This record gives sequence, C-alpha cells and structure tokens, in this order.
Amino acid sequence: MATKGVAQGKEGKTHHLTTEVQGTYHYTYGPFAKPVLHIKPGDIVIAETHDAFEGQLDSAEASPSERLNVPFLNPQNGPIHVEGAEKGDVIAVRIHSILPRGPQPVGTSALIPEFGGLVGTTTTAMLNDPLPEKVMKMNVTEQGIQFNDRITLPYEPFIGTLGVSPEIEAVSSLQPDYWGANMDVPDVAPGAIVYFPVLAEGGYVYLGDCHATQGDGELCGTAVEMPATVTIQIDLIKQNPIAWPRLENENVIMTLGSARPLEDAARIAYRELIHWMMQDYGWDKYEAYFFLTQAGRLRVGNVVDPKYTVGASVLKTYLT
Amino acid sequence: MATKGVAQGKEGKTHHLTTEVQGTYHYTYGPFAKPVLHIKPGDIVIAETHDAFEGQLDSAEASPSERLNVPFLNPQNGPIHVEGAEKGDVIAVRIHSILPRGPQPVGTSALIPEFGGLVGTTTTAMLNDPLPEKVMKMNVTEQGIQFNDRITLPYEPFIGTLGVSPEIEAVSSLQPDYWGANMDVPDVAPGAIVYFPVLAEGGYVYLGDCHATQGDGELCGTAVEMPATVTIQIDLIKQNPIAWPRLENENVIMTLGSARPLEDAARIAYRELIHWMMQDYGWDKYEAYFFLTQAGRLRVGNVVDPKYTVGASVLKTYLT
Amino acid sequence: MATKGVAQGKEGKTHHLTTEVQGTYHYTYGPFAKPVLHIKPGDIVIAETHDAFEGQLDSAEASPSERLNVPFLNPQNGPIHVEGAEKGDVIAVRIHSILPRGPQPVGTSALIPEFGGLVGTTTTAMLNDPLPEKVMKMNVTEQGIQFNDRITLPYEPFIGTLGVSPEIEAVSSLQPDYWGANMDVPDVAPGAIVYFPVLAEGGYVYLGDCHATQGDGELCGTAVEMPATVTIQIDLIKQNPIAWPRLENENVIMTLGSARPLEDAARIAYRELIHWMMQDYGWDKYEAYFFLTQAGRLRVGNVVDPKYTVGASVLKTYLT
Amino acid sequence: MATKGVAQGKEGKTHHLTTEVQGTYHYTYGPFAKPVLHIKPGDIVIAETHDAFEGQLDSAEASPSERLNVPFLNPQNGPIHVEGAEKGDVIAVRIHSILPRGPQPVGTSALIPEFGGLVGTTTTAMLNDPLPEKVMKMNVTEQGIQFNDRITLPYEPFIGTLGVSPEIEAVSSLQPDYWGANMDVPDVAPGAIVYFPVLAEGGYVYLGDCHATQGDGELCGTAVEMPATVTIQIDLIKQNPIAWPRLENENVIMTLGSARPLEDAARIAYRELIHWMMQDYGWDKYEAYFFLTQAGRLRVGNVVDPKYTVGASVLKTYLT
Repeated sequence: MATKGVAQGKEGKTHHLTTEVQGTYHYTYGPFAKPVLHIKPGDIVIAETHDAFEGQLDSAEASPSERLNVPFLNPQNGPIHVEGAEKGDVIAVRIHSILPRGPQPVGTSALIPEFGGLVGTTTTAMLNDPLPEKVMKMNVTEQGIQFNDRITLPYEPFIGTLGVSPEIEAVSSLQPDYWGANMDVPDVAPGAIVYFPVLAEGGYVYLGDCHATQGDGELCGTAVEMPATVTIQIDLIKQNPIAWPRLENENVIMTLGSARPLEDAARIAYRELIHWMMQDYGWDKYEAYFFLTQAGRLRVGNVVDPKYTVGASVLKTYLT
Repeated sequence: MATKGVAQGKEGKTHHLTTEVQGTYHYTYGPFAKPVLHIKPGDIVIAETHDAFEGQLDSAEASPSERLNVPFLNPQNGPIHVEGAEKGDVIAVRIHSILPRGPQPVGTSALIPEFGGLVGTTTTAMLNDPLPEKVMKMNVTEQGIQFNDRITLPYEPFIGTLGVSPEIEAVSSLQPDYWGANMDVPDVAPGAIVYFPVLAEGGYVYLGDCHATQGDGELCGTAVEMPATVTIQIDLIKQNPIAWPRLENENVIMTLGSARPLEDAARIAYRELIHWMMQDYGWDKYEAYFFLTQAGRLRVGNVVDPKYTVGASVLKTYLT
Repeated sequence: MATKGVAQGKEGKTHHLTTEVQGTYHYTYGPFAKPVLHIKPGDIVIAETHDAFEGQLDSAEASPSERLNVPFLNPQNGPIHVEGAEKGDVIAVRIHSILPRGPQPVGTSALIPEFGGLVGTTTTAMLNDPLPEKVMKMNVTEQGIQFNDRITLPYEPFIGTLGVSPEIEAVSSLQPDYWGANMDVPDVAPGAIVYFPVLAEGGYVYLGDCHATQGDGELCGTAVEMPATVTIQIDLIKQNPIAWPRLENENVIMTLGSARPLEDAARIAYRELIHWMMQDYGWDKYEAYFFLTQAGRLRVGNVVDPKYTVGASVLKTYLT
Repeated sequence: MATKGVAQGKEGKTHHLTTEVQGTYHYTYGPFAKPVLHIKPGDIVIAETHDAFEGQLDSAEASPSERLNVPFLNPQNGPIHVEGAEKGDVIAVRIHSILPRGPQPVGTSALIPEFGGLVGTTTTAMLNDPLPEKVMKMNVTEQGIQFNDRITLPYEPFIGTLGVSPEIEAVSSLQPDYWGANMDVPDVAPGAIVYFPVLAEGGYVYLGDCHATQGDGELCGTAVEMPATVTIQIDLIKQNPIAWPRLENENVIMTLGSARPLEDAARIAYRELIHWMMQDYGWDKYEAYFFLTQAGRLRVGNVVDPKYTVGASVLKTYLT
C-alpha cells in the first residue's frame, strides 16, 4: 500500500464522520446514495458506526421480531467518495483502531427467527418451529467482553461490513460479495489493509457492523455487535484490477470469497490467492496450487449471511 | 386474479412499450429508475423486449467475450408503475402472448467463458481452461425453432426475466430472487398468471429476456434467446402478502424459489406451496406435506444464474 | 437391450424370489452377501419385496422412532448373480410389472424425526425441535391410491431402490450412487429398461422399496411405500462401460446422477447424457451441450436420501 | 480418557503391526475383514502405514492415471479388534508419534484427473479439459519438508485416515463419515486423543494415509503423503454413545463433521460440539449456541474427498 498507493504512505487530512455528519445511515451498498464525505487518497476517516441492530435491541427483554424492521438492518456509514477512483483501480483501507462507543452494556447478540447457522431460515426453508427469540447484552471494553459471570472473552474487534459500491447495483448491506460488505471475517481488524476493486466512480466506501469478537462462522448469526468508533486510512491504487477483496497484515496475505454453498466461497478464495501469488510474487500456477495444498489456511467468516464468506491465506514469509 | 384483483378481470387501457418509448433499457431491478409507464390495474402492456445479449451476438462468428459488456447484460423493459401498488399487495401478470421480433435468425444461444452449468464459473471457481466460445444462431417462428438441418423444436416461448422492484435494493437483472427477475422457468408462458409481492411503491414491473424454448436447467446458460413482442395484462391484489413469486395456469398452481444450492430453491418452493395450500385452500400443514410428497412436481428453471430457480407445483384438481 | 444384450431379447427361465426363497433381506448393496439366485441373461425374476419399513409401521399409531431400527432399513431382495457378468459390462433390467402385495392398507408414508426434505436432519443439522412423528396408511390397488376421503391418486408404481453391487464396498441401501440403489426416481417403472455398470463379478442385482406413487423429490422422505410383487427381466451387455445408471423407455433416454448438493446430481446426469449422445448417437459434444440446453428435461427423484438423485433425459425422436 | 477409559490410563502390551504382520491392506472401512490384531484397552500399536498411493507414485515422472487403480486407493492398516468393544461404546485413540518411513523422497503429492478442489470432478461434473497430471516428490524428515529449493515447511504430521468400522457397511477408505476414516484433519496429530463411536463388535480400528503436513482443505486433493510408522494407544470407554468423531488435545475439544455441501459439515460439527458441552460440561443449549458464536473455531479438513470434513472446536479453558 505504501509503495503502490497514490498517497505513497503519507497520511492526509482527518475527517470526522460522526453520527451527526452521517445523518441517514444506509442499508445498501450502491452508487445511488449521496456521498457523506469527499476525501483524497491517504486521508483518515474516524467514523461513528451503529451496531447491526441500530441500537434497537437495547435490553435482554427486547423482541428482535418486533424491534427489527427488515430490510432496514445493518446500518452503514458512507458512502465516502475517494478522489480519482475509477473502475479498474483498487481502494485500500488500512484499519487503525476500533473502539466501543456508547453506554454499557455496549455488546449485543441475538437469536432471531429464521436466521442463524443451526436453524431453518428463509432460504434453507424448514417446517420446524423456530427457536425462541433471545437477546444477550454484554459489557465490552478494550479489556474484554463479559460473556457471563465466569467468562471474559478477549477484545478482538473487527469491522463486520466494509466495502465499496457495486457498479450498477445497490445491494443489501447484509450480503457479502465481490465488493466486500458483510463478510464478517475477523481478520478485517486493526493492523490489516483490505483491498477492494473499484467498481463505481469514486469508489464509495461504506462501513459498519463492528464486532467486539466473533467465532468462526458467526454461528447464531450475530456476533458481539457493538456501536464503535473506527479509524481507517483510505488509499487508492491505480489500474490494478482485482476480482475479489484481498487483505494483508503483518503475517499473511488473504483473499476473501463469498458464495453459497460454502465450498464455492473456499474455491473463489483459493483461486484468487493463486492469482495473487502469480501476479505479485511470480509463482507458477501449479506450484501455487501444490503449495496452498500444503500450507494454505482457511478462515470461515460467516455461514449465516446471504452469501457465506471464506478467507484463504498464506504466510508472507513463504512468498518471496 | 379475476375475483381478487382490483380490475375484477376487466381489461383496461392498452400501452405500447416500444423500444422508442422504452428508450434506455435497464440492467437492474430496483426502485431508482424512472417509470416508463404509469398504468392502472387491469391495463394491457405490449412490450418490445431485447434479447439477453441486447442484439450484440449478431452472427455465429461474434465473440461473446468481446461483445458482451458485463454487467450491462439482460436488458429489461420497465419499470412500469402500477397505480395503488403498496408493500403487502400482490402484482398479478397475465401473459397473453410472446412473439419473436426482428429479422431472422432471431434466436441466439452462446457458450460464454466462466458461465454455464457444466463448466467452472466465477463462483464455482476452477483452474481448468474454459471451453471455446461459441455462438449459435437459429431461425425462430411460431411454427418452430430450427435447431439444425434435422431438428425443429416446438415454439414454446416464455419470459425468462419478469418481476418487480425490491424495496430498497437494485439488483442485477441476471439474478432471480423473491421479487422474481431472471428465474428462467418455462412455465412463465402464455396462459399463466404470475404473482409477485409488491415491495416498493408502484410495484415497478420489469420484463425481458424472452426464450423461444428452453430445456430444464438452461444447461449452457443461454436458451434460445430472442427479441420479442410481449403482451401482458397487469392487475393488483390488495393486502395479500406473499413471500415468493407464485404462478398459476389452467392446470396447476406453482411456487418459485431461487437460491443456492439447488436443494434450497426446492425447499423454498415446496414450503411456499404448503403455505399457499394452507392459506387459500384450507389444507392442514402436515396433510399438505404428505400430499406433496406423493403428488408434488418440481420444475428446474435454471442451474446457471446467480441463484438457481425451482418451481414446485400441484394439480388444481386436487386442491378443492 | 434386445440387440446388444447377450439374450438377444429372448426370455429365459422364470425365477420366483418369494419371501421364503429370499429368507434374510439385506440392508446394504455389496459383494459380501451370498446370492439368492443364479440366473442367466434373459431370465425373468418375480420378486416379493418388503416395504421400506419392513412392515413395522403397521398402523397409523405406530411410532417410527420406536419401530424402526437404524441401520436396518430399506430391506432388499437379492443379490442375484448374473452368469458371465464382469466389470466393464452392463446389466440391463427391464421392468415388466409392479403389483401391491399383502393386506390393505398396503401403502404407508411417515414423518420420521431428523429425516425429510423440509426439516433439519442428521446431516443438515439444526437445533430446532423435530416435527411430530406421524404415520399414514393408505389403501393401494391398481385402480388407485386412496390418499384421503376426497382424493384418489393414480397408481404409478416404480422401484425405489434397484441396482448392483459396488466393487469392494457394501453401502447402505438407503444411499443412491453410481451403482443405482435408492434413487427414488419414478421413471424406474414398468416399461423402462434400466442399465447399471457391472462392478463386481456376477453383477449382484438388488431390488426393493417399491412406491405406489411419488411426487418429485419425495418431499417428506417416504413415498407411498408398499410391499410388492415385481417382475423384471435381466440381461447382460458385454464390454460396454458406463459410469452411472441409465434408463430408457418408449419415449426417452435418461441418465441418473446422485450427489449432494443437488446441482451436482444434475451436473452428473447431464454430462452422462452428453456422453451417451456422443457414444451411441454420434453427437458432437458442443452440439449436445447446446441441444440439452434447449430440449433436456430434469426429473428430481429425491432430495432426502444420503445423496440426492436427478434424472436428465431427452426425447428419442430427436436423437437419430 | 485416563479417567473414563477401561485402561484407566495404564499402558498395556505393545503390538507391532509391520507391513508383514498386516499383509493385505484394506480399501474399505467395514466389519467383513479379518482382524490383524486383537488387543486389550490400553494397548499400544506401532503400525507401518503405506502412503495413500501405496507407493505407486515413485517418481515425479509416474503417471497417476496409469499407476493408480481405482478403487484400490488409500490402503489401510487394520482392522484392530478391541476386546470388549460394543455398540454404544467409544474407542479412544491417543496418538503418540508419527515418523516418516522408507527411502527419500518419502513425500508425494499429485494432480490427478477429475480430483481436487479447484477442478471439475466425477461429482462436480464439468466439460472442461482436466489439468495436466503432475507428481511432486519431497524429502521429508522430522526437521522439515523440502517443498522446493527455497522453502522448507515444518514437519506437522497427522493421520489422514483413522476410524472404526461402520455397523453393517464397508465403505471406501477415501470417504470420511461418522465413523471417522478419511477426514484429513491436521489436528489428528501427536498429542491428540480421537474418539469414535463403536458401531460394530470389537470396534475394528483402521488407520493409514499419514501426511507430513497439509493446508486447510487439502486443496489439490493430496497432501504431503508419506508412508509412516505410527504409534497409538487405544482405549475403550463403555456405554458413552456419541454420534460423530470427537477429538481433544491439550488446548481444545473438537468435533468432526463430514458432509456435502461444506456448510453441512460445519453444522454437524457445531451441533455436536453443543451436545458435548451440554453433556460433559453442563452448558445450557442456548448459552452454548451463543458462546460458540463468539468463541468457536472451525478447521476445514478437506474439500476434496467424497464428503468434506470440518472440525469445530472451543478452548478447554472456557468450559469449566
């Protein structure tokens, strides 16, 4: 990013995307909304995000089916217009920090009818009765997540939903796809740079849905959802077409595929990783195929969203 | 439709949606486009549709990968604003006729790289080399489809892509979903009435992508695609929420589910059919489940689009 | 079959495989059981089959979970040793007739916990409570199936489970696979010839699990299950390797694929059908691919067994 | 294991299952083979395993399609009869060590036609041409795996195929299932105890297919396959029915689900893990569901075998 980006690693202006500046939040990723910010490559954005329920599940007694108003779920900040971003470019988002925001208990998880990994859903349609609705509230600080009286989970925050606008579509922020969005991959965390293909003029970065932590697959459908203050830096890499989101951190490069069934998400991610190894690191296709067979790693982001997401990664130390 | 519809079976005004009236065609189903027509329930629309390639594959020598400009595929007429249509209503589309339009050979099918039922795709990502690109042109009249020197297939036209706008999304016309769109189900044919849930104010009916005939699954990804003149009547049923498109013709009622993997499309369709039997015909849930086990029928529409589509049906004679 | 088979269409000896001759029924398809019959190509076998529950669900009050003893389900007649059958050959089974056998009500269907197309199962594992268990008994004659007081379904019998032994495995008779077995495809009916790859010396034909009728997908998991008297003729085609079961009747040729997810069953079936058209009818691969796109038909056998089964077919009139 | 097992943690007799003692290797998991060893709970077995190719790919020039003789693949040691093992019991296998065996290069990987995660297969049937066949030979020692001149991978050996006999079936050793077998999960490694449901009298333990290392998913279908000397201890836990294999090591408990599509493997594994937490650690069902949503981990074993395998795990520190 530092070498390929337009900003050459330099930090630009800092923009405060407070709830007031944001005003209306968005429930789709698309090119039709008016940008809330116009930034230059290298600029910093500090965004105040809502939780995925937009705060409606404010107590353990709240009823998800009464409080949640489909399709107005998973509210997003943005879109952020990036100067000079054109189709064929890449937008790089470096995640600096994610802090819980608002009064405790700031973390929420919920069992929602016809939603989740171990229940019949609107898609995997069943005749069984749904599970009872439940809401769980948790105190979350940088020191940890109080799951119950006995267990405190480490604070491992990440951005659940992050991406750019599709070219001509406006798609629910609940869905992950080749433009990113609701991937729910825990590696989208402070220290990572996430790369997205620019599909629409200005890129139109959206973000929201921070999680204080999450297990692989986001089993019941909702992680430790929290409102957050997110600091990111956005850069632009010109004319560097990629097909799916990519990520790197200190240790690995990772590609992110989203599809159903789950094996297709893994196929997308691994094929993209082979392409990345070929393009940027000079690997032969078959050697990369053999190598990932022995040393590739898969991270299952979610098995609950409209598409499932898998990250395929390899250690940087092996690449060059 | 005749009894429940606002128009009470009466035909209203006839609207000519020629290519000139349509002007710009659309590549998404959504609420952001300006209506090309405002109609009243009961009105007739005669629409001139393009083929799915918008005429770009004009000879057997044309190269799909050069001529087709993703995502500008599967051009749609519409949106048609239906007076009084509100969320919770149903839009009923009665298909009167579908005629081939334009100079011969009017029918086109094609093998497109990374697309089709028996090849690796952008989703079922493979390392295999793609098949060679191919374009096939066919003469199509109401008397038949000249597949080759030896075989003439019967003319069994239907509307490949038909539906209404999602509530807040604008989704590629290539994708079938609960608002209809690219279902590619051959039963969406003259004589059928197709029901869609109204999700956005005015309903916003779109249509296009007529097929002169098609096998189950639309195996290579493109049927006998043709520009057509389509005559439909559109009615409105107030306050009758349905979750997925439904269809009826002289013989059957059918529900249409779209999802991946394919079994989820079948699950959606069959569950919706049980709901329909319960709501409108007074069946018990378990009796309907048992009955469809013995007498239900599945039609696989497509196994090639972003979601696969299955229709589940039952003979009307059994219902009452 | 008449021209290619060893028997040249001539009927050989008739063997009566009564319940007494059968003695112990089998719950796997494999080469380890001792043949109950040794026959020559062209011979007729009249077999008395049990229903899939082996008669245990003898009243509407019977409890499936108490009466059924997993894995001792779906009892099979056989194995039948076919003289001269070797790996690389094909066994052809012509179905002459299927008659209900035993006292009324001879037909049984049931809702079994963790089994069926619209419920969580042992594989599509859910946390939802199971549906209530239910057993349904139906009178079945050649004149019809009395589903309830109002509805009599046509008698459309077929063999649910039919096939040969795998080469070295012995696999549950509940599973359909490339050796046939529990495909639950209604086209395996009187008038059809079904072809299976010989995998083990003597072929080892098994059969059972007759259905008086069935809807596409066998939705709840159990059709109108009945004990039956089945008359088949078995022939042998030497050195004619096929990869998956094939079927023909007066009108169509059909290939039968079994896999999960369901689209893979369709892929297998359609690819095999292309191979069949190439091998026996001289079609070009791409022409067959285009043609099945326009004129292929899919029949969903089951979406409930350990593998799902799809038949892909094409009219014989188009082939030559 | 130490507390619940019949052997109470004591080591019994040591048995040497050399290639000579083994004699014929097996290609199925089933109850029909004669035991090569009869052991008591607590006994040690030192087994000499073949690689998955039974040594046939002895040079980089060997042709897999010529050398490999389907279905005689993935040769297994065993069956080992465990005294007193009955249906409803659990067999516990503690893995002590896995050492490469035989002359260098002892490691082999291969691209095999119609097999692998990023190619069309016999199940995900495609018309694309297969990739070229390739064989890769690697030196493997406890110090590392020489992938190429530049890269040495750490030696992280595990048993690819390990399990017990099904009750009445004999199923290809290529397939993972609820009796274990070809799960290809790297956690089945020294230090782990793996638990299997006893389904057949004597349990009948089989093992083979050791890998020097493997990436998640075993992408091309074959890891660093090697012949090995494996030391395991086998114990028996009476009357403790489990539905799927389980595993524990110093840090985690893990359940192992195998199915297609991949999400079903994850569903099985996570549901089993909830059951384990309820049964052995006293968790409430919904609390466990919520907890694994936040802290569960998924390991994708293979996405290439007849069923895909996923391990779901949770840290032991959280359990009590």
